[in-house]
Amino acid sequence: MNDQVNSAWAINRASALDLAPLLQRRELSAEAVARACLERVEQREQAIGAWSFLDAGKLLSQARALDAQPVRGPLHGLPVGIKDIMATADMPTEYGSPIYRNHRPAWDAACVAAIRAAGGLIMGKTVTTEFAAMHPGKTVNPCNPAHTPGGSSSGSAAAVADFMAPFSLGTQTGGSVIRPASFCGIVGYKPSFGMINRHGVKPLSESLDTVGVLARSVGDAALLCAAITGRAGLTDPFPVQAPRIGIWRTYEWSKASSESIAAVERAASVFAAAGAQVREASMPELLAGLDEAHHTIEYHEMAGSLAFERQQHGDRLSANLSERLEKGRNIVPALYDQALAVADACRRLIAGVFVDFDVLLTPSATGEAPQGLGSTGNAVFNRGWTLLRVPCVTFPAWHGPKGLPVGVQLVGAFREDRKALSIARWAERALAALA
Amino acid sequence: MNDQVNSAWAINRASALDLAPLLQRRELSAEAVARACLERVEQREQAIGAWSFLDAGKLLSQARALDAQPVRGPLHGLPVGIKDIMATADMPTEYGSPIYRNHRPAWDAACVAAIRAAGGLIMGKTVTTEFAAMHPGKTVNPCNPAHTPGGSSSGSAAAVADFMAPFSLGTQTGGSVIRPASFCGIVGYKPSFGMINRHGVKPLSESLDTVGVLARSVGDAALLCAAITGRAGLTDPFPVQAPRIGIWRTYEWSKASSESIAAVERAASVFAAAGAQVREASMPELLAGLDEAHHTIEYHEMAGSLAFERQQHGDRLSANLSERLEKGRNIVPALYDQALAVADACRRLIAGVFVDFDVLLTPSATGEAPQGLGSTGNAVFNRGWTLLRVPCVTFPAWHGPKGLPVGVQLVGAFREDRKALSIARWAERALAALA
Repeated sequence: MNDQVNSAWAINRASALDLAPLLQRRELSAEAVARACLERVEQREQAIGAWSFLDAGKLLSQARALDAQPVRGPLHGLPVGIKDIMATADMPTEYGSPIYRNHRPAWDAACVAAIRAAGGLIMGKTVTTEFAAMHPGKTVNPCNPAHTPGGSSSGSAAAVADFMAPFSLGTQTGGSVIRPASFCGIVGYKPSFGMINRHGVKPLSESLDTVGVLARSVGDAALLCAAITGRAGLTDPFPVQAPRIGIWRTYEWSKASSESIAAVERAASVFAAAGAQVREASMPELLAGLDEAHHTIEYHEMAGSLAFERQQHGDRLSANLSERLEKGRNIVPALYDQALAVADACRRLIAGVFVDFDVLLTPSATGEAPQGLGSTGNAVFNRGWTLLRVPCVTFPAWHGPKGLPVGVQLVGAFREDRKALSIARWAERALAALA
Repeated sequence: MNDQVNSAWAINRASALDLAPLLQRRELSAEAVARACLERVEQREQAIGAWSFLDAGKLLSQARALDAQPVRGPLHGLPVGIKDIMATADMPTEYGSPIYRNHRPAWDAACVAAIRAAGGLIMGKTVTTEFAAMHPGKTVNPCNPAHTPGGSSSGSAAAVADFMAPFSLGTQTGGSVIRPASFCGIVGYKPSFGMINRHGVKPLSESLDTVGVLARSVGDAALLCAAITGRAGLTDPFPVQAPRIGIWRTYEWSKASSESIAAVERAASVFAAAGAQVREASMPELLAGLDEAHHTIEYHEMAGSLAFERQQHGDRLSANLSERLEKGRNIVPALYDQALAVADACRRLIAGVFVDFDVLLTPSATGEAPQGLGSTGNAVFNRGWTLLRVPCVTFPAWHGPKGLPVGVQLVGAFREDRKALSIARWAERALAALA
C-alpha cells in the first residue's frame, strides 16, 4: 500500500479510510497528501471550478505543521473541502454572494473547528450556490462539463468526484447534499437533523439546514462524520444480516426519469440477490403533503434569515432569490404553523414505517444531471426526507442515457445513523460486486 | 395622554402599547422618545451598567430619520435594547467576551433586521454574561445594586426595569429570560422554541437557545414579539374566561424559597378569586429527569458551539466556562442521545398535561435576587421548560424578605403562545387589581 500511494495519482484515488492509518503511522506525510491534492487541483480546477478559495501555500504550511506535531486525531493529515457557507477565521467566507466578497468571519464554524481538532486539514472553500439556495456558482459536473454538478453543495461534490479532495462538507436544506452527490457519481450522507453542530453555518432555514458529507465511499463519509461528532461507532463494523429494505416509490414517483426508476429497480434486485429482504413499503397518505409543507417552511424561514440582505443589499441578490424571499414574506404565520404541524405528524408516521424496515430505498434525484448550468436540478426526492430529519445516504447505482451517474438513496430512522450507514456500506459492496 | 407623555419622565414610564399609537399618529416623535430614554440612561447608567454599547448621536440620528420617513410598521419609533450576543452590522457585538472586543459583524441578526423593518429603533447593545453562559457582566439589579440582576440577559432586564428602554430582547438557554425578569421585577416572555428566527444570535446550544422578550407588561412583550414574527394575533384581545390553571410544584420544589412558594400560592388564590379554575396538576414521573437531560444537552452542545473559542482563545475564557466546556467534551454521544430521547418523551407527556389545563402556574426563580454579583442565580425552575420548548411568561407577584420582587411563571402548551399571553394578561390584571 505504502509504495502504491506514494504517487500523487494513487493518493488522489485512495480512500480516506485507506490513507488514515498510513498518516497515523507516519508512513505517509500530511504534506505528501496535500501536494497530491494540489497537483490535481492545478490540473483540473480551471475546467471544473470547484473552489471559491484555495491557497496552496497556506495548505502546505498547515500540512507541514501537522507533520511536525503529534497525531491529534482520526483525521490527521486528511484534507477536507469546506462549503463556502461555513465560517473560517483564516479564509474568506463569501456565501456564494457578491455581498460578502472577501468577508472574513471572526471564528471557525463548529464543524470546521471539530475537523481541525481531529487533525484534519482545511483544504479550502468550495463553491456554493448563492446562500445555499438556487442561484448557481461556477462549478461544472466533472462527469460532463456541459451538465450541472447539482447544488447547493456544488463545489464540495465536484472536488471530491474529481479526486481533488478525499471528502468535503456540504449542507442540505432541500436536497443539497444528496442531489449533487448523485449527479457527480459519488456518495452523499445527510445525517439525522442536529447531529453535526451548525454554529457558523449561515442559516437558510433553521428547521431544515443539515450539515452533511460528500465522499467517494460510504466508509469515508462515515469516517468524516464520526470524527466531527465524536461518534466513533459510526465507522465500526456493524453486523448487517438480511436487512429489511422497503422500496419507497414516493408520492412524486411520476417525476422520476426512467434511469432513476431503473436505478431503484436494479438496486432492489441486487440487494435481494445479496440476501436482503426487499419489499414495497406502503406510504401513509399524510406524507403526500410533505413536499408542500417543506416549501412553506423553507420559504417562510428563509425570508427571516435573509432579511438583512434583502433590506440592505437587495440589488445584489439574484432575481430568483429575491422572488423567493418575497414569496416567503407572503406566507402567513398560520400557514407556516400548519406546515410545522404536518411535519410533526409525518415524523411520527415515518417512525412507524421503520418498525417494519431497517432502511427505505428511493431515488436520489429525478435522473442524471440535467444539461446546462442555469439550474442545479430538482430536489423533489430529497425535500421530504430533510423535513423528516432522517438520515439519507446516496451512492451510484446506474447510468442515464448520456452516461452520467444515477444514485439511489437509502433512508434510515431518525438518529439511527449507524444502522443506515452500515446497511449502505453493505449495499455499496453488493452493487460493486456486480459492477 | 399626549400632554402626559410629553415629559421625559412620562415617556420613560409609559408602556410601549401606549406610546405606539402616539408615534404612529405622529403625535409623539421618535426623537422625543429617544431623548427621554437617553436622559434616563444619562442619569442611571453609571449606577446600573445595563449597556455594553450605546451611541446617543447614532440613536438620535436614526430617530430623526424615522421621523422624516413614512411610518414603517408597528414598532415605529419604539427603542429596543438588544442583547449583545445578537449581531448588529452598525454596532459592536462582543458576546460578553474579551475575545470579541470591538467585533463588528457583517450583518444584523434576523431579529434585529425584523425590528428595523417594523420601524423599531435599535437603541444599543445590552450586557450579556460571557456567551450567554454563567460568567456575569457589569450589570447590577436596579431594585438593589448589591444584588444580581440575574442572567444571562442581565442588561436587557435591568435597562427595562430601570425605565431606560420600554422593552428589549434576550435569549434563554436555561433560564436567561425568565430569571432576570423575575429578579428585576418585570415581565419576561420566552416564546415557543423556534418562534423567533435565531440567525445572527451566537449559538450556545442549538436545541435550547430561544430568543425572548423583556418588558414591563405582558402586552408590551406581546407587541414586540408580534412585530418581529409578523404574528399580529399575539396582541389581539383573546377572550379569557375561567382559564384552567394547574399549579405545578415541579420536581425541584425543595429549591423554592418561602417567598417563591408564597408568590405561587398568592397568585393561585388571586386567580381563583378572579374566576379561574385552579387546581394542582399531577406531574408525570418521567419529567423528574428533565433537569438532568437539559444539563447533558446544554453542556454537550455548548462544547461544540464554543470549540473555536476554546481552541484558539482558551486563555481568555472565564475559568467557570472553561470547566463547563471540559465537562461538555466528556459527555459521550450515547449519553447525549439518551437525554434527547428523554426530552422527546417528556414533550409528548407535557402535551397531554395541557389537555386538562390552559396554563401551568409555577415559580419563576428560586426566590428574590441573591445578594452579590458573582452569580446570576439558579435556573432550576426554567431549564425544564426551555427543554420542553413551551412558552413561558413571568410577571411580578410578590416580594422577598429584602423587599425584592418575586415573579410567578405561567407556562402554556407548545406553539399556543397566543393563549398563554392572553391568560398572562388576564392574570397580570387580576394581580394588579389586588395590589
